[in-house]
Amino acid sequence: MMELKLLTTLREQNPIVLNLANFVTVQDVANALNALGASPIMSAEVREAETMVQIAGAVCINLGTLTTLQIEQMRVVGQLAVANHKPIVFDPVAVGAVPYRKDVALSLLADFHVNVIRGNAGEIAALADLDWQSKGIDAGNGTGDLVQIARTCAQKFSCCVILSGPTDVITDGQRTVQVHNGTPLFQLHVGSGDILSSLVAAFTAVSPADSFEAAQVACLVLAGTGELVASQLTADRPATFAADLIDKLNLVTVKELAEIEQVN
Amino acid sequence: MMELKLLTTLREQNPIVLNLANFVTVQDVANALNALGASPIMSAEVREAETMVQIAGAVCINLGTLTTLQIEQMRVVGQLAVANHKPIVFDPVAVGAVPYRKDVALSLLADFHVNVIRGNAGEIAALADLDWQSKGIDAGNGTGDLVQIARTCAQKFSCCVILSGPTDVITDGQRTVQVHNGTPLFQLHVGSGDILSSLVAAFTAVSPADSFEAAQVACLVLAGTGELVASQLTADRPATFAADLIDKLNLVTVKELAEIEQVN
Amino acid sequence: MMELKLLTTLREQNPIVLNLANFVTVQDVANALNALGASPIMSAEVREAETMVQIAGAVCINLGTLTTLQIEQMRVVGQLAVANHKPIVFDPVAVGAVPYRKDVALSLLADFHVNVIRGNAGEIAALADLDWQSKGIDAGNGTGDLVQIARTCAQKFSCCVILSGPTDVITDGQRTVQVHNGTPLFQLHVGSGDILSSLVAAFTAVSPADSFEAAQVACLVLAGTGELVASQLTADRPATFAADLIDKLNLVTVKELAEIEQVN
Repeated sequence: MMELKLLTTLREQNPIVLNLANFVTVQDVANALNALGASPIMSAEVREAETMVQIAGAVCINLGTLTTLQIEQMRVVGQLAVANHKPIVFDPVAVGAVPYRKDVALSLLADFHVNVIRGNAGEIAALADLDWQSKGIDAGNGTGDLVQIARTCAQKFSCCVILSGPTDVITDGQRTVQVHNGTPLFQLHVGSGDILSSLVAAFTAVSPADSFEAAQVACLVLAGTGELVASQLTADRPATFAADLIDKLNLVTVKELAEIEQVN
Repeated sequence: MMELKLLTTLREQNPIVLNLANFVTVQDVANALNALGASPIMSAEVREAETMVQIAGAVCINLGTLTTLQIEQMRVVGQLAVANHKPIVFDPVAVGAVPYRKDVALSLLADFHVNVIRGNAGEIAALADLDWQSKGIDAGNGTGDLVQIARTCAQKFSCCVILSGPTDVITDGQRTVQVHNGTPLFQLHVGSGDILSSLVAAFTAVSPADSFEAAQVACLVLAGTGELVASQLTADRPATFAADLIDKLNLVTVKELAEIEQVN
Repeated sequence: MMELKLLTTLREQNPIVLNLANFVTVQDVANALNALGASPIMSAEVREAETMVQIAGAVCINLGTLTTLQIEQMRVVGQLAVANHKPIVFDPVAVGAVPYRKDVALSLLADFHVNVIRGNAGEIAALADLDWQSKGIDAGNGTGDLVQIARTCAQKFSCCVILSGPTDVITDGQRTVQVHNGTPLFQLHVGSGDILSSLVAAFTAVSPADSFEAAQVACLVLAGTGELVASQLTADRPATFAADLIDKLNLVTVKELAEIEQVN
């Protein structure tokens, strides 16, 4: 069984997660972290980078609404996080659809090592230089082997990769686990991926020595919580789902998640 | 009857709408687009403008929280959209109250042609150089003929104009239609106008040859959906209304809207 | 009894509140102001500062996600607000945890006089140069006398101070009042402090001659409304609480608040 006790640890330790955020979804991300039991902090100014990294237990860098100024902040924060041994989660939003974003992502990944990359199939395939048809910020369609795509990306960047979707594929390049929990309602709410990336960061903060374990638990916690919430809804109501998801992140127990866990 | 089948087309085609967004309401706008059946993408960096415009079916430019940097991005995106034949919806937030914003809006409108301008009475009157008393971001009060104000603005900028409010006036300068559906609850939620502008962009993406038609359908879909939602509420609850509105945008049918349509 | 009739005045006057906002929580802040009966306006561009200050009834300056550019805008807006006799509320987010932010806050407070400072214990203690252990954006723990900390800060900056938390301490350096209403659910929703700061600004707009009175009423209105909402919830649901809070800000009456008021 997966190390779901990490959820208990997280709630006891209340780790600070520093987010270089996507401004579209930043409020949801902050509330999801807070509801789960972590403590979110956001920063947009490079001059406070050193303190921010020092007080944080982990860092989440999200390319969702990048600007030239923000890219420089990301570089400094990333390098400081490495120097301070703080885990980094990297979310390469839309690198599958926008070549400029892929260039930025590759440049950042060349400048500092990240612990986890979290993206959809189109984004992970793009970083791995594999073929895939992305569509905007959405995963798009492709016929590749998702496990192979994730593994190739993980090996290329020597990190853990989460290729998230209806099934989440988590791999460190050698070991691979799939989380089959979830609900299609995640696709109806903008920011589900951003929330996952920041929750992964929260779990790496309480499991810094094992990002692979932290990534799996984060995927199961979010997908399982969403599944529990969706099972109570009688129609596809995206805003109700989003609110219920935040509520349930605060209330969900290890026992509830263990009972529905579909991981292999 | 209005061409409500455009809603079905939109849901089939899932157009990408590029938003240069108001950061106050950007999450609601993204979720409304997504719930309706479109695919939102936001960008704040001019270096990705060319790709963003190419992958988008339409563009929505919102002055809500403009900065000097963003204005230059708006100019580039606007000109690229014209060159790539992508419809543009322009939302001149607060130009009735803030002369600097009016100057910016006129400068942008002189640099590229937009397909639709969507504003409240104070904003549309300001662009048309007609008298009106705006109040902040609100419409304010005036005694002018709303249809005449909208027509004057449409003729001045050779585009379609939506003067939205309790009654939405839609005109291309010659033809004029009014949508009488709605609910006062729209005024209680910040961002109703921003949502409308982006939904209009989504409809222009699936009806590029007829912005006038797209604008009408968008107004009816949003106002009608809000009316349906409000009819189920027993008190003026702005946050519940906002969530229910997103939910219902995902569920509303052409039949439901046709039954309550009040357009002339 | 506290001057709760200020709530009625606010709803009659519908004051415009200019927010230099924290982008994490800006949508909630705008909706809370709107629901209460004020009119929010946000600005990120210094070139429109003069008009924005002139049309506003009060200004709220929030350091939540400060950038170098925004700091200069804050300085200009602050000085214009003083020159135009518009009350200023200042929210020194995270100055207890981040020395750079404390430097910025002190520099701004040296350049223009503010009417109210609203922060948690860690933030107010930092501005007052008193000992306290902050944690990120959270208040942290300390053993100091909260009333003494607030008074010291108020005397140092010759303004009203709100040290908010389970009990809100409001002081002008001489007089002190404590609002004991509230609910722990405020801690579960990111942005409760930001909302309070902007509501304080709304009340100063309708009580410019007495910031101490405005601050007390704002604290009671928010804490009391939250308490009323929480009493209807059967579990700790942060997103439901946040939505119900906005709803209730629109509906709450002076009578309801007077009945639960715990102020001394």
